[in-house]
Amino acid sequence: MYKYEETIKFYHTDAAGGLFFANLFLIAHDCYEKLLYKMGLKISDILDRKEYLIPIVHAEADYRIPIKVGEIIEVILNAELTGNSSFTLNFTFNKKNGKVAAQVKTVHAVVDFNSKKGMPIPENIKKILQNL
Amino acid sequence: MYKYEETIKFYHTDAAGGLFFANLFLIAHDCYEKLLYKMGLKISDILDRKEYLIPIVHAEADYRIPIKVGEIIEVILNAELTGNSSFTLNFTFNKKNGKVAAQVKTVHAVVDFNSKKGMPIPENIKKILQNL
Amino acid sequence: MYKYEETIKFYHTDAAGGLFFANLFLIAHDCYEKLLYKMGLKISDILDRKEYLIPIVHAEADYRIPIKVGEIIEVILNAELTGNSSFTLNFTFNKKNGKVAAQVKTVHAVVDFNSKKGMPIPENIKKILQNL
Amino acid sequence: MYKYEETIKFYHTDAAGGLFFANLFLIAHDCYEKLLYKMGLKISDILDRKEYLIPIVHAEADYRIPIKVGEIIEVILNAELTGNSSFTLNFTFNKKNGKVAAQVKTVHAVVDFNSKKGMPIPENIKKILQNL
Repeated sequence: MYKYEETIKFYHTDAAGGLFFANLFLIAHDCYEKLLYKMGLKISDILDRKEYLIPIVHAEADYRIPIKVGEIIEVILNAELTGNSSFTLNFTFNKKNGKVAAQVKTVHAVVDFNSKKGMPIPENIKKILQNL
Repeated sequence: MYKYEETIKFYHTDAAGGLFFANLFLIAHDCYEKLLYKMGLKISDILDRKEYLIPIVHAEADYRIPIKVGEIIEVILNAELTGNSSFTLNFTFNKKNGKVAAQVKTVHAVVDFNSKKGMPIPENIKKILQNL
Repeated sequence: MYKYEETIKFYHTDAAGGLFFANLFLIAHDCYEKLLYKMGLKISDILDRKEYLIPIVHAEADYRIPIKVGEIIEVILNAELTGNSSFTLNFTFNKKNGKVAAQVKTVHAVVDFNSKKGMPIPENIKKILQNL
Repeated sequence: MYKYEETIKFYHTDAAGGLFFANLFLIAHDCYEKLLYKMGLKISDILDRKEYLIPIVHAEADYRIPIKVGEIIEVILNAELTGNSSFTLNFTFNKKNGKVAAQVKTVHAVVDFNSKKGMPIPENIKKILQNL
């Protein structure tokens, strides 16, 4: 489990007055990035090394309670190793009052940078996910 | 069925070189907006009238083939009336060569502006979706 | 002077590999929001109260050094009361090595919510800016 | 002069109800991209060839009239060759009633892909800008 906190920014909102639905995925991805940084893995290094990429092959979100600008949201991230070359991240977005506002799931596939074919999850990433 | 075309913009991309996954939802939502406009319904009118809102309660996407900046994507939108107060939109994103690059599904719930409780889909929207 | 720190997120980047130029303004605006929160002023309250709005009437940025995903940027914010009903914010974006990567200036006008005409800067905001 | 039209999308707006100021730059950049495509130059080709990049070194915007979701905006783009290795784009955003809603200026510098040093504007781009 990894905990992360984000204050909903004005640029996350839309004219209906709250968080724009697609921007929930931005916050989820940022949480994932912060986990990698904390574990010493930089996205810029992955991109520079050109060994593998980890594209998202599926993403989904359930929205339960509207979220407004300025609200502090706690994100709880859990990981599942769902295959040899893919993993799933589950994010729960909690409001300050403890209520679940939304949930996100993303499925990530590890592919060889050149062939774009599936390859085993790199050991350092596997370790991060297993020890979460 | 409603057809819509979008050229992937530079601001839809990320440092991995292609479309940022969350931005697929932006394009899907824009397609939905364009359908409403074509049918004479303006989002700004919905917001100004303060009678109802149509928040997205679920969204999901499957990514099959990477999409790059400048690619012209054809989006095919189909609708399902999935309940008295909710509907589902299915978007298929085709490349110029006819291959399916991605798919998106969004579930929309109609709620009363003030009470935020579910209410029947307004007739004009129901008609748009039924005649698609 | 107000200090703020941001790690460049993946969703801030574009296919050229670094921060997308327009997203520098997102970070500047978020810095401004964080200052207001720290001083006890919530944007959602301003929007809910419907007394005034503070639209940005001018924005500009100078980009000196490319910024990559994952870089930690320190933002220094200074304010100028440039008129009875407007103020200017100056943001300097520093890299960890102390080098100035970019600068942003935004000009904000206070307008009456209904008439949309200029009105004096509210006292609480004036105080925040004067004591910066 | 190059003319381009854009309908303000829901994802361009913020909780104040209209276009989020920074998103005006997205629309300006998209207009520039569309000009390049029309002239046969693809951004993805520029990125793939790795000969040069054209980073934006300065950007500014003046906002005169609020812009709402669903509004159709006509963008007029003019170019100036402001140096051997840089050029300036001026965008005027007109409402349907002919009123100028906003203006944007972006300054672009051509740099060698590897050294990141300034280099002369490539001939094909120079021609596009001169014949505008």
